[in-house]
Amino acid sequence: MRARVEVIGIGAGDPGHVTVEGVAALNRADVVFFLDKPGEARELSDLRQAILDTHVPDGGYRVVRAEDPPRDRAAARYVDAVADWRSRRADVCERMIAEHLKPGETGAFLVWGDPALYDSIIAVVDDVLARGRVDFDVRVVPGVSSVSALAARHRTTFNQVGGAVQITTGRRLAAGWPEGADDVVVMLDAHNAFLRFADDPGVRISWGAYVGTEDEILISGRLVDVAERIVEARERARRAKGWIMDSYLLRRGAGDPD
Amino acid sequence: MRARVEVIGIGAGDPGHVTVEGVAALNRADVVFFLDKPGEARELSDLRQAILDTHVPDGGYRVVRAEDPPRDRAAARYVDAVADWRSRRADVCERMIAEHLKPGETGAFLVWGDPALYDSIIAVVDDVLARGRVDFDVRVVPGVSSVSALAARHRTTFNQVGGAVQITTGRRLAAGWPEGADDVVVMLDAHNAFLRFADDPGVRISWGAYVGTEDEILISGRLVDVAERIVEARERARRAKGWIMDSYLLRRGAGDPD
Ligand SMILES: C[S@@+](CC[C@H](N)C(=O)[O-])C[C@H]1O[C@@H](n2cnc3c(N)ncnc32)[C@H](O)[C@@H]1O
Ligand SMILES: C[S@@+](CC[C@H](N)C(=O)[O-])C[C@H]1O[C@@H](n2cnc3c(N)ncnc32)[C@H](O)[C@@H]1O
Repeated sequence: MRARVEVIGIGAGDPGHVTVEGVAALNRADVVFFLDKPGEARELSDLRQAILDTHVPDGGYRVVRAEDPPRDRAAARYVDAVADWRSRRADVCERMIAEHLKPGETGAFLVWGDPALYDSIIAVVDDVLARGRVDFDVRVVPGVSSVSALAARHRTTFNQVGGAVQITTGRRLAAGWPEGADDVVVMLDAHNAFLRFADDPGVRISWGAYVGTEDEILISGRLVDVAERIVEARERARRAKGWIMDSYLLRRGAGDPD
Repeated sequence: MRARVEVIGIGAGDPGHVTVEGVAALNRADVVFFLDKPGEARELSDLRQAILDTHVPDGGYRVVRAEDPPRDRAAARYVDAVADWRSRRADVCERMIAEHLKPGETGAFLVWGDPALYDSIIAVVDDVLARGRVDFDVRVVPGVSSVSALAARHRTTFNQVGGAVQITTGRRLAAGWPEGADDVVVMLDAHNAFLRFADDPGVRISWGAYVGTEDEILISGRLVDVAERIVEARERARRAKGWIMDSYLLRRGAGDPD
């Protein structure tokens, strides 16, 4: 009887965004593994717990927590720092699984949004398997990403007819508009990278913070018109709550849809 | 009492991929609108109906069907042809809503996958509203896209650490690898556009057809090794079933993860 690990996308804030398969998977778990990020906002882990409680109200699973190793943000090469971090995370995960998951049992890692998008848990689980010291089956349950939720709240789409969309980070956007795509989805932006395009009258933005939660904020319009409002709303929200999670869609070449 | 139209992402084949919010929305609908594509595989509309039946087993909604106007595929300019098609679709939708959705009622359009990705219904509903002859509220329920389901089945991700991913069409990929992204998600490819890169030993592919359904086929590996197998599997499947829906992830620069 092999053990099984399920990587479950739980949506990005709204408990209603968990899929029917996700609910079943959460209820199947004997053990739920939490990698608590050092310094993570308490409110964010409460949100995750609330999603779990909504769908598994009677509990019945064991909880195993470990501290996610901190990432060396001062490292010279981003990619090296991440590789090192991944390997330390694999140590932590391997230990959690070896010590707490019995043969025939099912363990769950809950992933914010969709596990395919800017999340490392699938890679970490692969690393653990590759080391060969523990053995288990892996199943991934896809989820609604934060940016699908964002697009839905704005009643808009990622791409224009027949066009391409690039999903990227604030860091990359700061280096320029991606070639070959008139639509850009931006995540992980700590520095208002959109400001770089704020003079271009042809760019529209659909921005959202805490999408799917009670604190949701949505702003959209021509970037020239709303860029300052977004900068202010971000800053205000970050100060008030102590943390922020936001993302946005940029579109150019769509004529004037108003 | 305004009427309401809900655009509901229903996932791309597996009834388990409908979200809890999606199930609630399906059950709220007084009317379900179907735009039957001329020549659409009967099996595909049966799949959609099966997803609906799974989650609304007792029915209780009215069904309104209309023929989706055909697209002029011979038109000189793709974008013009699509714009004309959109306007004829708006005529059809406007009529369905005007004739069948009463004040205070809720109508539902079911969208395959996630409504944000290569689907025109949000734009068509916007067009209907912009004409101003019928009035209603719009709500969009995000869904699990076919490509999130594909990535989950392959236990892989869209992007590499800190990297970008471009979501694009076969037609665009045939013109070259998108700049600035080492990961590419390809949809709507009728002509094996991946073959263009089949000589590059650094490219990996994760391909899937009918993902989430009983007929699911998955092939992955280095593109040089599996390209021919994919071409054959596609051709065989298309011949056997008379239709195909498939998509794939291409990744380069990942070293050799094996
Ligand atoms: C590490 S990534 C994880 C993404 C996740 N796997 C997904 O599918 O959404 C975190 C980034 O996702 C975005 N994000 C996550 N949740 C969000 C929410 N509720 N509202 C807006 N953006 C969100 C932000 O850009 C944040 O920096
Ligand atoms: C018009 S687009 C609609 C996409 C949809 N809105 C989504 O989120 O997946 C149709 C394309 O989606 C992809 N697709 C849809 N369902 C699929 C499935 N079950 N397996 C593989 N690819 C699928 C194929 O590339 C197909 O050409």
